[in-house]
This record gives sequence, structure tokens and C-alpha cells, in this order.
Amino acid sequence: MPKSVTFDRDKVIENVMELFWKKGYNGTSMQDLVDATGLNRSSFYNSFGDKFSLFEETLKTYQKQQNEMLQESFTQAKTPKQAIISLFKGISDDIRSGNQKGCMFTSCTAELGGENKQIHDFLVDNKDKVVNSFATLIRQGQQMGEINERKDAETLALYLFSSLQGLRLTSMIEPNLEAVTEEILSIL
Amino acid sequence: MPKSVTFDRDKVIENVMELFWKKGYNGTSMQDLVDATGLNRSSFYNSFGDKFSLFEETLKTYQKQQNEMLQESFTQAKTPKQAIISLFKGISDDIRSGNQKGCMFTSCTAELGGENKQIHDFLVDNKDKVVNSFATLIRQGQQMGEINERKDAETLALYLFSSLQGLRLTSMIEPNLEAVTEEILSIL
Repeated sequence: MPKSVTFDRDKVIENVMELFWKKGYNGTSMQDLVDATGLNRSSFYNSFGDKFSLFEETLKTYQKQQNEMLQESFTQAKTPKQAIISLFKGISDDIRSGNQKGCMFTSCTAELGGENKQIHDFLVDNKDKVVNSFATLIRQGQQMGEINERKDAETLALYLFSSLQGLRLTSMIEPNLEAVTEEILSIL
Repeated sequence: MPKSVTFDRDKVIENVMELFWKKGYNGTSMQDLVDATGLNRSSFYNSFGDKFSLFEETLKTYQKQQNEMLQESFTQAKTPKQAIISLFKGISDDIRSGNQKGCMFTSCTAELGGENKQIHDFLVDNKDKVVNSFATLIRQGQQMGEINERKDAETLALYLFSSLQGLRLTSMIEPNLEAVTEEILSIL
């Protein structure tokens, strides 16, 4: 009878996510994954399938975490506009305090968004979900009169998404983005 | 006496640049490079050094091309503000017409900006140069009264840089960015 392998799956996924985020999909070797999981290759394949399947699993975990962060900043804010402002300010404060890791999805888009159809479709779907969340908040803010009603909510939402990508990417080479964040938000 | 190898170096660099841009640094194998250059491994190493040296050479070629494109759109425009608008509109038109390749520097930042000190420093230096070009135009536009004088030129320049990164990255998963580009430019 084969020895059964016991390990904390969530903890392993978390470690592997950090690794893929830092080194990228192609930059992460099978040996890196074996080291990060603490499993031998045979147990690795039995538990996670191949490298690509594990990468997809980490993307879904990251999406869940990002979504929880988004929802948390939205429920804590007093108004829809405040929710958007607090999300962006939280990110620029985080960058200012030394986080230069960027965003796993930003890096994944750059590396595989144009190369792998499955990843491309996942990223398009994620973008649609984030843009929809922003658009809902913007429409609510417009109804309350705190966001310019003459602007198209869908356009503003996509503008916020694109600006967020820019901020997260630029943070890898420039830590001082508070004033830029203010400019981004000034059009609301 | 060894056979001398003759080839069009500029053409080879151009091919290799496309390859690194599309597949990323880590996603490009030695075999890919041998295929793209048409050289055998020994001639490859004699002509270009290692993979990393060749990558650095393509980054410098890309920087030169981007800089020429920037200068061209600046000299053709009637005013400084028009120069900035025409650069951004050119990019969003290009995206709309089907170019989803993003930007080589955007992809390079995501892949190696946090991982490789030499590449990080190159990208910081490139960012400073682009931001300086934007800031010069913004100050000229402010002196002419066509750009809001109360805004800080350096901040606006970094905002444009960050917005450009966002546009180029988002273009890999969303082709319709004309309205977003209008919003980005609306704060000038």
C-alpha cells in the first residue's frame, strides 16, 4: 500500500502563489515547486496534476483573495465613491510602504495574456467582473449625486480598471504614487 | 581557420526582439533563439554572448524605436498638448485595429522588474526619461495656457506614464479603449 501524503493544501497553494507571483509562470521551475511544496515529484503530480493545473489553481485563489479585499473595502466605506477612493488609497499606501510586488494578475496578463488562450479567457472574465463591480458603485454614486452623472459609468469603470493596472505595474519601478492616485481619482 | 559568419545583425535583433516581446525572457528557449537567428549555438554565443546579453541588446533597440516614435509624434504636433494627445490616440487606435501585443517594457517590468537588479535599473532609467519628456511638454503647455497651470507638471507626467502602462497592459485583454483614453487625457 502506498504511503499516504498529508499536508496543508491551503498553505501549499499560498506558498506556490507567492512563487508564481514573484518569478512568473515560465520563471518557476519544477524544482522550485518541489522545494516550495515540500513534496517529491511523484506526490506533487498526484496531488496537483501538472504545473499548469497548479498555476490555474493559484490564480483562482488569488482572485478569491482580491475579491474579498475589494468587498471588504466596499462594505467598510460610507458611500460608493468613498469605497473606490479607499481601495485606490489603500493600494498607493501599500506601495509607499515598500510593497513593490505589483499584482499577480497584472504580471500574468503581461506574461501569458497574449500567449495562452485559457489564461487569456480567465483574465478577460476577471476584468469583466472587476469592471462590473466598479460600474455598480459608480452608478450608485451617480444616483446619490457624488459622482459626475454626465459620465458613462461603464467607461469610468474600465478607466479605473486600466488605471489600477498602470499603478500596480508602475509600482515595481516607482514607489511614490500617492499624487498620481489623486489625479486618477480626480475625474470621478 | 574558422568559417566567418555573415548575417544582418539589425534584422536578427528585430526578430529576436519580437520573440522576447511575445514569449517573455523566461518563456524564450535557447532553441527559439537559434531558430530565430538562423545561427548555430556556437555562432550565436560568439556573436551575441549569452541569452541575457542579447535580451539587454533588444531592450536598448526597443527603447530607441519607442523614443523615435515619441519624438516623431512630438515634432509633428502643433502644440505640446496636441503632442501628448496624438501619442495616446495613436496607441488607442492601434489597439482598436487589433494590436494586442501590449508593450515590451510593460511585459519586461512585470516579468523581471522586481527580480533582476540590472533590468530594474534599466527600467527605472527609461521611466525617468519618458516622464521627463512628458514633464517638458506639460510645462510648455502650461506656459502657453493650454494645460491647467495649477497642476504639478511632474505629477501629471508620472500620471501619463502610469496611465500608458495601464492602457498597454489592458489592451491585451480589452481592445476598446478609446473612451478610456479620452478620460485619461481629460485631466490635462
